[in-house]
Amino acid sequence: MTDRRRAILTGAARVIARRGVRGLRVADLAAEAGVSTALIYYHFKDRPGILRHALAFIGDRADRYTEGQVTARPSDPRQLLEQTLLLEFQDLPEVRENSTAWGELRAHSVFDPELREELAAAGAAWVAEVAGHLAVLCPAAPAGAVTAAAERLTALLEGLSVRWLSGLLPLEHARGLLREAIGVETGRLSSLTAAN
Amino acid sequence: MTDRRRAILTGAARVIARRGVRGLRVADLAAEAGVSTALIYYHFKDRPGILRHALAFIGDRADRYTEGQVTARPSDPRQLLEQTLLLEFQDLPEVRENSTAWGELRAHSVFDPELREELAAAGAAWVAEVAGHLAVLCPAAPAGAVTAAAERLTALLEGLSVRWLSGLLPLEHARGLLREAIGVETGRLSSLTAAN
Repeated sequence: MTDRRRAILTGAARVIARRGVRGLRVADLAAEAGVSTALIYYHFKDRPGILRHALAFIGDRADRYTEGQVTARPSDPRQLLEQTLLLEFQDLPEVRENSTAWGELRAHSVFDPELREELAAAGAAWVAEVAGHLAVLCPAAPAGAVTAAAERLTALLEGLSVRWLSGLLPLEHARGLLREAIGVETGRLSSLTAAN
Repeated sequence: MTDRRRAILTGAARVIARRGVRGLRVADLAAEAGVSTALIYYHFKDRPGILRHALAFIGDRADRYTEGQVTARPSDPRQLLEQTLLLEFQDLPEVRENSTAWGELRAHSVFDPELREELAAAGAAWVAEVAGHLAVLCPAAPAGAVTAAAERLTALLEGLSVRWLSGLLPLEHARGLLREAIGVETGRLSSLTAAN
């Protein structure tokens, strides 16, 4: 990615996190990124193009800060699953900005179908990653039950994230609830294993 | 509530569900409700006043359509809990409009602290109601665990609701995941009972 492209997308994430998708005006984005509006249109064609690329950029950045701690990547599959989900809940400016922008793009897709394809693909990849960790933890559980548990854990994370970001839920409490949810779901998947 | 007051709040819910909080302009709301902007300011003082009252109105309406089926209110506590949570997932225009507007107010509170107090109160009441049903189902479970399960079930519902409303998750699948979550959480609460 060229420096200017990256500057535009970094600016887009910042503006979306600060003012929401509807507050993203191309002129403001140009000022934020220190480029001309013409350059933005040259790279991203139109406003929906900016949003689609911003979504991919924010998703990649989340992967990066998730993997940033991979020097300490745990070998225990339970810890790996916890780390994957809990890294979304950190009181670091980059994580908060990324989570805010991502949540806003998600909320905005209720009103605007333009982003649904990208969000669906990102959501499916996220569920598959969590299901992969769950399958290692509970190898004999039926695949359908594992996927359903992964769908619930990721949807719960999104619900808790909005509560955290809007100041309704302290960070440590959100983390505790999610950590417990992992225990509840894996406990149940293990019992399915035993029963079948 | 006077007819005009109700007309304004009904219009506000409709406009928020259609165009989001940022799309709510007082002039458009006046046109939607068939009243003057002066009357809106007379009743609700300013834009934050409109949003706060719209939030309370939408919450009351959700209670009403929840209780609308109360002629068939089940006596079984498990069914009562399922009904309480699953009535949020119905493909009826009023439910969809209400859920969309509520979700939008929740998402908007990330950017605007004005609504947090009302959202926190509504959220606490909602958790307490679900915890009440869980406590009947699992009478010996520790109160802290019951409240945590209620927090998770309501946060999961919010996460699934956004996915449903944005077309990422079919309605029946959302209902199935939530119904299973109730089973997973109550199963675990019952095991805590046995263990303690």
